[in-house]
Amino acid sequence: MPHSNPMEHCAHTCHECQDACLRCAVHCLDMGGAHASREHQTLLTDCAAICGLVHGFMHRQSPHAVHLCAECAEICRACADDCDRLAHGDRTMKECAETCRRCAEECDQMSAAGV
Amino acid sequence: MPHSNPMEHCAHTCHECQDACLRCAVHCLDMGGAHASREHQTLLTDCAAICGLVHGFMHRQSPHAVHLCAECAEICRACADDCDRLAHGDRTMKECAETCRRCAEECDQMSAAGV
Amino acid sequence: MPHSNPMEHCAHTCHECQDACLRCAVHCLDMGGAHASREHQTLLTDCAAICGLVHGFMHRQSPHAVHLCAECAEICRACADDCDRLAHGDRTMKECAETCRRCAEECDQMSAAGV
Amino acid sequence: MPHSNPMEHCAHTCHECQDACLRCAVHCLDMGGAHASREHQTLLTDCAAICGLVHGFMHRQSPHAVHLCAECAEICRACADDCDRLAHGDRTMKECAETCRRCAEECDQMSAAGV
Repeated sequence: MPHSNPMEHCAHTCHECQDACLRCAVHCLDMGGAHASREHQTLLTDCAAICGLVHGFMHRQSPHAVHLCAECAEICRACADDCDRLAHGDRTMKECAETCRRCAEECDQMSAAGV
Repeated sequence: MPHSNPMEHCAHTCHECQDACLRCAVHCLDMGGAHASREHQTLLTDCAAICGLVHGFMHRQSPHAVHLCAECAEICRACADDCDRLAHGDRTMKECAETCRRCAEECDQMSAAGV
Repeated sequence: MPHSNPMEHCAHTCHECQDACLRCAVHCLDMGGAHASREHQTLLTDCAAICGLVHGFMHRQSPHAVHLCAECAEICRACADDCDRLAHGDRTMKECAETCRRCAEECDQMSAAGV
Repeated sequence: MPHSNPMEHCAHTCHECQDACLRCAVHCLDMGGAHASREHQTLLTDCAAICGLVHGFMHRQSPHAVHLCAECAEICRACADDCDRLAHGDRTMKECAETCRRCAEECDQMSAAGV
């Protein structure tokens, strides 16, 4: 399904990022150690949650979507950094980090474009 | 992104259904009248919510995902019926009904397949 | 249940605000007209959603909770204003406006207190 | 705030159970080991998620709330059992188990009472 406008596209990317973080969180619990630490798990859950929230705000075409995009981008970037830090070549974590960075970029663009 | 297994595929369809319902809910508020009625809006919100929930359960590969699929299918079908009833050729509503039916079918299959 | 610290207290108030907005949204759909308008319904849904999100961030004691509190306060205030504008003495809407303002104040305090 | 009817009361208990599970999940990540295992964390997340969902369905007075209560009760009980199994006197986990059992009982009553 093609996305007719930037906000629809960004909403779709937020859903992909939410997916990636949920998948990565479970994977990291299986890995254990630092991957199952509160710090890392909290970041993954935070990122999945804000992406899901922003997705909904965008679909409602809410005037508050743009402000939340800036916060979403920041959390996505923090999550990507932490996944990269712990990945050591792990594919699921690398994919999560990439998806988070892509989502951060699109959210930044939405935020910069304003209403 | 291809989905390697049936549960991943169904989770993706749940996300598409959540999208369709969120989009349709806003569209129906704009249309007003019966489209903005509590009954119809509640169904759209219920459907978006259960699809979002089941999506998460599937990504966690939760043993409870399968039971919730049956309930999700039922709500998706009720939502599809109500959208069809009120659509009168409206494209957004027709698309929502089709997505809800597709999601209901996939959730039924997951439910029938058991664990 | 008493709340041992300000963040627990604010999280509880966010849950109360989410309740009030969900209750008010359904009530306003029943009232119809401007109460069932996309603008008002979107605000109520936005407010319930951000309150639910911030509640989760607080319970995870996430470092991002504080930043999101500022955004939550802004949306709560916008929602309170819109409820007051449309209430004309309606009790459910008045209660929603009051709960939203209380939540905005607590979120502002959390935001001002910083990490 | 007193709750005027059984569904409001049960919705409130669902919110308390969601709180308890979110609090317990973070606490268990800090404890590590079996507490941070995928199985236990998934149960806590499942329980928090279904409680949040059922809470929303109840506030919308959705006709589907009752069916979901039965599923919620089952997940709450599974979560309570797993918390009890791992608690070994830990207070946060004991409280979570108690809240989950109370929520399961109220959800069972709602489910038995039917629409």
